[in-house]
Amino acid sequence: MHTTEHIQGIVEQVLKEEKWDINPHGLYDPIAYVLGLGGKRIRPVLLLMSTNLFTEDIEEGINPSIGIEVFHNFTLLHDDIMDKAPVRRKKPTVHIKWNENTAILSGDAMLIKAYQYMSDLPEKKLAKCLEVFSQTALEVCEGQQYDMDFEKRDNVNADEYLEMIRLKTAVLLAGSLQIGAIIGGAKEKDAKLLYNFGINIGLAFQLKDDLLDVYGDPENFGKQVGGDILNNKKTYLLINALNNASDKKKKNLKEWISKKQFKASEKIEAITNIYNETGVKNLCEKKMNDYFNTAISCLNKVSVEPNRKIILNDIANQLMNREV
Amino acid sequence: MHTTEHIQGIVEQVLKEEKWDINPHGLYDPIAYVLGLGGKRIRPVLLLMSTNLFTEDIEEGINPSIGIEVFHNFTLLHDDIMDKAPVRRKKPTVHIKWNENTAILSGDAMLIKAYQYMSDLPEKKLAKCLEVFSQTALEVCEGQQYDMDFEKRDNVNADEYLEMIRLKTAVLLAGSLQIGAIIGGAKEKDAKLLYNFGINIGLAFQLKDDLLDVYGDPENFGKQVGGDILNNKKTYLLINALNNASDKKKKNLKEWISKKQFKASEKIEAITNIYNETGVKNLCEKKMNDYFNTAISCLNKVSVEPNRKIILNDIANQLMNREV
Repeated sequence: MHTTEHIQGIVEQVLKEEKWDINPHGLYDPIAYVLGLGGKRIRPVLLLMSTNLFTEDIEEGINPSIGIEVFHNFTLLHDDIMDKAPVRRKKPTVHIKWNENTAILSGDAMLIKAYQYMSDLPEKKLAKCLEVFSQTALEVCEGQQYDMDFEKRDNVNADEYLEMIRLKTAVLLAGSLQIGAIIGGAKEKDAKLLYNFGINIGLAFQLKDDLLDVYGDPENFGKQVGGDILNNKKTYLLINALNNASDKKKKNLKEWISKKQFKASEKIEAITNIYNETGVKNLCEKKMNDYFNTAISCLNKVSVEPNRKIILNDIANQLMNREV
Repeated sequence: MHTTEHIQGIVEQVLKEEKWDINPHGLYDPIAYVLGLGGKRIRPVLLLMSTNLFTEDIEEGINPSIGIEVFHNFTLLHDDIMDKAPVRRKKPTVHIKWNENTAILSGDAMLIKAYQYMSDLPEKKLAKCLEVFSQTALEVCEGQQYDMDFEKRDNVNADEYLEMIRLKTAVLLAGSLQIGAIIGGAKEKDAKLLYNFGINIGLAFQLKDDLLDVYGDPENFGKQVGGDILNNKKTYLLINALNNASDKKKKNLKEWISKKQFKASEKIEAITNIYNETGVKNLCEKKMNDYFNTAISCLNKVSVEPNRKIILNDIANQLMNREV
């Protein structure tokens, strides 16, 4: 078995070796910039770990795993334009450092490059992997669309929210794992189990994100605690609070949401109290744990030796127990 | 052999049958809108005609041909954002009718859909067709980048301009023909000849465009005659006039380019006169005819019965002798 560090090293190496220093620089420089900003490379690592469940030789999975990482970074690039985000990984975003047209076109080129990497597969596996990849990629776009739609709606319910994060976040983790399994020669049933492992880990991961924003340790948390609350971001906590709170608390919550002038710490404290009192913190934790347990039970059913699954099990635990 | 009309009919039919009336509507409605605006469907028609050179059964080429058309419309959608174009085919562009975020995200989804259609191929042909498609798609992005770069530069030379239009316009016609040939079971040499036929037709086509803008019959020409002149668009005519004119004429030309206040008809007349007097009209016509003749000689070398090539020959002639 390959260690996580070893696999991460392979991914970084291949990303570093690709020659982006070519003409037209206006197109390729931003791509090198985005891919050079780092990140944990979780998706390509999951792909290769999934391959490694079934075979020691993970060579065939390397370029497709890069395809997944390039695709993921393409989505960040275009999402940052749409969200008007000025900063990504502590650096200016492409549409700020260059301009919007550059961010659109370099993103388009990244999506094509992602397909080039993904297509570097033996004839027998190409069609199946591409099918999963395209389906996944389309669903990620659908997730982003729902996310934008929900910002303009006041009546989003919890199920709609969960479906949105399934599309926007979970399917790419799931698709990475399924593609990795196909490349490793897994049976269809095992590849599907790994897909479902990914969906459930992805959903748990996003709920953890929602919780950390409110309940994270300010010392460890990378972002400002309460950022979602200040932005009125429709998280699992807010949506459930709006749907489940007593009339009085609901009124209070809506007042805080519509207030234009307030002390940040007071708004955060008031809404956190409502979350605690209406039990949505517990609700969110329970939902997260349910997804996590479903994920682990999917992994347990994959028909390979239990000791081969330790690394994926560990990664799942790390994603759940993270402080940032 | 299938007629042009028959092939066009197949393409329209498949485009019409795809169900875009699905959730999230914010993502898929603009795609249906763009694909419904019409157009001559030249690229998918060329693909299927190329297949038809080598086989009567063109079924395998249909979905890939749709992939090419969806890709082409994706490039129009994103280019229109970058060029801030308000109108396309006499209708409001997507970023005007909806908004910019919608145009970005629906375009992304179109690029993915294009790959889905293109991937609907037998195992033996998939890798090769995808390779041509991805390479072509990337080059189209490079062409758009050069086009944007050139707007900010004063010293673009004729070779750079030709390379830009090769990438932005010609490679997609060429790639369509090459992919069609591969699907039809052509030998590599024939597929490459058809690619080169496409490159040369594409270059001739764009030079014809540059000429029509200035010398088109106002009665027949779809757009305003002289539109490129009024926009100071760096066409083959303008670039060569700037490089070849006498110092006096060059000075005169530059004055017209930098003038902020002028009567449109006067600017058009003055610059057209400079084009005539410096011989760049003749230069452009000669270059166009050279490309056209090279294209036909490539087509002539393709190793199928001459009578199978009549339709492609006719199409090439139509593209050259058009009035719009």
